[in-house]
Amino acid sequence: MSSSLPFLPVEIIKKTRDRIPLSTEDIHSLIDHYTKGAIPDYQMSAWLMAVVLKGLTHQETYALTKAMLHSGSTLDLKSIHKPKIDKHSTGGIGDKTSLILGPIVAACGVAVPMMSGRGLGHTGGTLDKLESIPGFNTQLDHLTFKKILSQHGISFIGQTKDICPADKKMYSLRDVTGTVESVELISASIMSKKLAEDLDGLVLDVKFGSGAFMKTFEAAKTLAQSLQTIGKSDGKKVTALLTNMNQPLGAYIGNSLEIQECLEILSGQTLINSVGTDLYEDTRELSLILAAHMINLAGKAENITSAYHLAKQTLLSGQALRVFEDVCQWQGGHLSRLPKATYSIEVKAKKTGYVTKFNGEEIGMLAIKLGAGRAKVTDSIIPTSGFQLHFKIGDPVKPEDTLCTIYGESEELIESVGESLLTNVVIEKNKPMPFELIKEILY
Amino acid sequence: MSSSLPFLPVEIIKKTRDRIPLSTEDIHSLIDHYTKGAIPDYQMSAWLMAVVLKGLTHQETYALTKAMLHSGSTLDLKSIHKPKIDKHSTGGIGDKTSLILGPIVAACGVAVPMMSGRGLGHTGGTLDKLESIPGFNTQLDHLTFKKILSQHGISFIGQTKDICPADKKMYSLRDVTGTVESVELISASIMSKKLAEDLDGLVLDVKFGSGAFMKTFEAAKTLAQSLQTIGKSDGKKVTALLTNMNQPLGAYIGNSLEIQECLEILSGQTLINSVGTDLYEDTRELSLILAAHMINLAGKAENITSAYHLAKQTLLSGQALRVFEDVCQWQGGHLSRLPKATYSIEVKAKKTGYVTKFNGEEIGMLAIKLGAGRAKVTDSIIPTSGFQLHFKIGDPVKPEDTLCTIYGESEELIESVGESLLTNVVIEKNKPMPFELIKEILY
Repeated sequence: MSSSLPFLPVEIIKKTRDRIPLSTEDIHSLIDHYTKGAIPDYQMSAWLMAVVLKGLTHQETYALTKAMLHSGSTLDLKSIHKPKIDKHSTGGIGDKTSLILGPIVAACGVAVPMMSGRGLGHTGGTLDKLESIPGFNTQLDHLTFKKILSQHGISFIGQTKDICPADKKMYSLRDVTGTVESVELISASIMSKKLAEDLDGLVLDVKFGSGAFMKTFEAAKTLAQSLQTIGKSDGKKVTALLTNMNQPLGAYIGNSLEIQECLEILSGQTLINSVGTDLYEDTRELSLILAAHMINLAGKAENITSAYHLAKQTLLSGQALRVFEDVCQWQGGHLSRLPKATYSIEVKAKKTGYVTKFNGEEIGMLAIKLGAGRAKVTDSIIPTSGFQLHFKIGDPVKPEDTLCTIYGESEELIESVGESLLTNVVIEKNKPMPFELIKEILY
Repeated sequence: MSSSLPFLPVEIIKKTRDRIPLSTEDIHSLIDHYTKGAIPDYQMSAWLMAVVLKGLTHQETYALTKAMLHSGSTLDLKSIHKPKIDKHSTGGIGDKTSLILGPIVAACGVAVPMMSGRGLGHTGGTLDKLESIPGFNTQLDHLTFKKILSQHGISFIGQTKDICPADKKMYSLRDVTGTVESVELISASIMSKKLAEDLDGLVLDVKFGSGAFMKTFEAAKTLAQSLQTIGKSDGKKVTALLTNMNQPLGAYIGNSLEIQECLEILSGQTLINSVGTDLYEDTRELSLILAAHMINLAGKAENITSAYHLAKQTLLSGQALRVFEDVCQWQGGHLSRLPKATYSIEVKAKKTGYVTKFNGEEIGMLAIKLGAGRAKVTDSIIPTSGFQLHFKIGDPVKPEDTLCTIYGESEELIESVGESLLTNVVIEKNKPMPFELIKEILY
């Protein structure tokens, strides 16, 4: 159990344990040796727990991000002579904004190199949604990815093995050692992958609330600031939006269902419910605002207001839809063959009142149960399964109104979820405060 | 990296990380599975770091001690119909009291089952001292150990492999993961091995100061209370003495040198220096006081004062010496062949003043350099090497007084240590406060 390294991992562990900042060199040694297998998991997990409980300085967190970034290869997008801007969301339920804002921003002359992860836990992943389109290939080689990006301004790709291998190894270890919950480790993990995209700017959608990873606004803001600090330390322009995930975004949750919602929004459609609410409004609005911030960072508009108008115009003119259709085609996807669920059931409201709350994490867990998400990385996805929500917070409902529709490939399974879903859409007597989608923007 | 156990180690780790107390069952599961190899080191080290930084309750620490105790076998001393009392010291420089108090207490009708460890780091170990006696065997089988204990009231044994295997495995891991420094882990490690001795009572010598593991009185007191709480939770009588390790105990440091000091003290001798100080006084006094507390716990005296008188009388009458000689003989040791160093040099004082301070840890490290102690468990010991200190704190010295004698088997090595030793015996102009050997006793 001893190490013959010129530097002693145990000394590094003790420093972090005692809140003595590590040098950039120490951090690079630690991550390099760990990635190569020269430091055992048991030393890394002790260090990770010390980080969870004692924290890291901004400088250490930045050094960690860079060390993780340099553990593998990065995209080389020098040949693309456009501003390169991406968006990252910390994950939410029904969050499909990437698929709307990406094409909008690309249509405005910005390159959007969208490298995404798969969904894990109660929130969905962009790759899983795209792969519900028959034939859609997210495992592009770097050359093809760059070619599509250069031609259409956007391309979607999964993280390849050679991007941030340190992050992959550390994440597996964190998952089984109770060391996931650290702002610094989460920040370094996210930002190392984003910096690998060779960006000029990044817009962050940091979500708080019942359906988000960060349950409180304060925790989300701390994470947003940490992410922004890393990006800025690296010379990137970073805008962070703190957005409310106390209700699922839009009408649909589930992979092909969400693609359908995106296509309808990109086609300029609305989805008006029985009390006159457009169930697509929050998805559309958040997509436009995030797109506006990306356009603004890219210098493609005078200010954020004109960027918003440009984004909206690009959406309504159908240009964004065309970009999305083109990219789908180039990546092998057949939108006309988007699958639909074989079975569906409706879940009825049982009382009169207003929708006041969605228990987001529980709803996410029910989506996993249906096969729309995964609890473990090895779980497979049923692309057509999921939910439609027919009401948003603040809407009045009465008994026998259809609250939700559940979709899937097994009647038994969708029926088994109905009762639980009902208890997680809270109906109360008094009308709640208006739902505030965007709480703060950090520039 | 996942576990198929019915209980999830990661949930245990998270609880301790979040300061949610574990059940006794959880702790037993954790230790049992770890000892069997069913929980990997990387999960254990994350848990250990969480313990270092978040602590454990008394109840959890007791449960941990018992789980470690039950990871292996224990001594069965039911056949010995005497009160069974041991002493444990947290380790100090020149601390040879076990070899004096053991025979005293045994001569008073108490059984002293002395299971000891080897020295590691800057403090010495009882086993190493005994093994400097040619032929002395500390690797007795349990039957022989019990036979000697029953016949002579005392026997010395090393920890056998089957005693607390969980402690051995955890200690190796703690050593390389920065998780040694935890009162709860240290307490559980010490007490699991002491409870394995099947005792009725235990006297703890918890040392503080420059030559001790705990540098401050406060830290030592916290440890003493933790050890005492565990012992009492297990129904044992436990007295803890907080003793001053700001100067080495007695005149000699080093294995055969310390045996020589013990033999002389057991023979009633003193060692008076040039200014009239008995250099053996602190060793003798601490041995008598610790012995008195052991006799008192055993119920072999009316009170602590009469126990002290009984101990002193037993020492002065030569009864204790006879016990020690008998046990040496039974365990194969030849006291008459105690080895002496081939080389020695004297280190002279360079200024006038009073001895005010010994830098204990540094002196311990010099002892390791000489081969009198070990830095790693695999290091071997040179039994004859070590130091004699010729003055105690408060003694006046002048240039050319011999401050120390250095003993060893290599002239070069002992010369290389001289200068450093000199800088770690501090001489100042003003006479220091009297040295207080025992600071507090916890009943």
